[in-house]
Amino acid sequence: MTTQVIYLILSFVLTAILGKIIIPILKKLKVGQNERACGPRAHLKKQGTPTMGGIMMIISIIVFVSIYCIFNQNKDLIIPIIAVGIASLGFGIIGFIDDYKKVVLKNTEGLNPKLKMFGLLIISVIYTMFLINYAQIGTDIVIPVINYNLELPLWIYIPFTILVMLASTNAVNLTDGVDGLAGSVTSIMVTAISIIAMKLGFESISVFGAIVVGACLGFLIYNFHKAKVMMGDTGSLLLGGVISSMMIYLKNPLLLILIAIIPVVETMSVIMQVIYFRITGKRLFRMSPLHHHFELTGWRENRVVGVFSLVTFVAAISAVLII
Amino acid sequence: MTTQVIYLILSFVLTAILGKIIIPILKKLKVGQNERACGPRAHLKKQGTPTMGGIMMIISIIVFVSIYCIFNQNKDLIIPIIAVGIASLGFGIIGFIDDYKKVVLKNTEGLNPKLKMFGLLIISVIYTMFLINYAQIGTDIVIPVINYNLELPLWIYIPFTILVMLASTNAVNLTDGVDGLAGSVTSIMVTAISIIAMKLGFESISVFGAIVVGACLGFLIYNFHKAKVMMGDTGSLLLGGVISSMMIYLKNPLLLILIAIIPVVETMSVIMQVIYFRITGKRLFRMSPLHHHFELTGWRENRVVGVFSLVTFVAAISAVLII
Repeated sequence: MTTQVIYLILSFVLTAILGKIIIPILKKLKVGQNERACGPRAHLKKQGTPTMGGIMMIISIIVFVSIYCIFNQNKDLIIPIIAVGIASLGFGIIGFIDDYKKVVLKNTEGLNPKLKMFGLLIISVIYTMFLINYAQIGTDIVIPVINYNLELPLWIYIPFTILVMLASTNAVNLTDGVDGLAGSVTSIMVTAISIIAMKLGFESISVFGAIVVGACLGFLIYNFHKAKVMMGDTGSLLLGGVISSMMIYLKNPLLLILIAIIPVVETMSVIMQVIYFRITGKRLFRMSPLHHHFELTGWRENRVVGVFSLVTFVAAISAVLII
Repeated sequence: MTTQVIYLILSFVLTAILGKIIIPILKKLKVGQNERACGPRAHLKKQGTPTMGGIMMIISIIVFVSIYCIFNQNKDLIIPIIAVGIASLGFGIIGFIDDYKKVVLKNTEGLNPKLKMFGLLIISVIYTMFLINYAQIGTDIVIPVINYNLELPLWIYIPFTILVMLASTNAVNLTDGVDGLAGSVTSIMVTAISIIAMKLGFESISVFGAIVVGACLGFLIYNFHKAKVMMGDTGSLLLGGVISSMMIYLKNPLLLILIAIIPVVETMSVIMQVIYFRITGKRLFRMSPLHHHFELTGWRENRVVGVFSLVTFVAAISAVLII
């Protein structure tokens, strides 16, 4: 527990310092994301806020995972943290390429969405391969509540794992639409996952979680309303990779439905909006994802972040108690 | 329609001729699969029957797909047949490596099941990538009966496609346990898929189906009870790849649940057997997959093949009518 707290604090401090250095650089590069014309009007004033802030988190994670590995020359500790770390950072790097194309190379489309999805797919496949062939954690997953270890045949396990990783990333990406929202929700989620890892005896994975939470909190200093920097796809894909790769390693991917209730509901709102519109020709929500709907009904950004964080907090505590 | 019939007949003739050449070679190489000790007793006498007969089908498919491509220098025709052909043959080659290790190199385990699954996974991923990026057929699938085109987001479409391919292959592999069973059931299934391809205007895919049906029928001459050759994983993985890659290209993978009702039920029987045994400690079927159960209740192999083929025939006609 002490180890985790130390890593969390160190990671928080480093990310906070990195903000001082990196945000001015991002600003100079004019790395500002143009808000889509279809967002709420209040968002128009965000034009010019630099994005790609997720890079701060990536650096902090690389530094402290490396330090952890240097100080713990134990295979049983290193394999899990390296596996989860590489999967998460791989996702983050795909997001970085996307952001870089969008904001530095001024390519409005960014990375081709299909290519982006394939990058994520390749990393998911490599991660799954690694888990099965090298880490050999087995292909069973836990059914929460009844606590039954369901052995999945490989032909179900592999597509299932890929689905969890792609869906999580997509969901966190959708959640990232209000100042401080994705960062707040994710830091609560990862705290819960880190505690679960501790309970299940995955020491190094819980340290990884602590490092990520520290990095999220360090980033949030600059990201709360009114944001000085946005995480961009660099951040949201990274964090999607973090929650999914951790929960898959812990054999509890199903529990993500509870822990990541906000990203899940955000995704559902988009899907429901599309289906409802196709059937009735009317909108179900004023705008999807859901946070835009609340904004348009008059909630201020901080209120959205507060309520969504509270919901995540309750879900996270429930998840920890279920384990 | 005439084209398809010609290719079917030519492929049938070539495969039948190949049997005369290849089966003696397989026999000389002592390429006989040892029946697992746990199969029905009647199967013990099968020791020594050469396997890897699927190679006959592979050769025939390569020959006639090449001929078709030479005679039809049209991108719209060549892309689908090449895509489906390479996916299927890729699966067949993985099966061939497995068989080769088992029977020629006398490695009883064959290809490591995890490596095998990963080979299949890689091919599925490449096929999916090809469909999305190059063939650009879109990520929608048809909901049968109501005939609704459901647009899937990439993060669902990709794992779903992989699941269909891995599950189909696994299912055909399980079905291949009685002389002539997998060959008969598959030739009926692929006939139906080929007709569906024609109805949907996928000329070259329906020709591909016709080539496969011809190859299956040519192979069956030597495979009906008492079999002179078995298809081995070479054949069953090939045919699993054929039905799944064709139906995915035709955007009707869900219809496979009906067309491939026998492989689906065989898979279900294995899953149910395992779950039932874990819960009650008793067996639900005398033996799984299902065909072994019927054999142990006294059905002769030919009866199993007849009944299972009849069921497939009814399902196949229904599927063609649904489209």
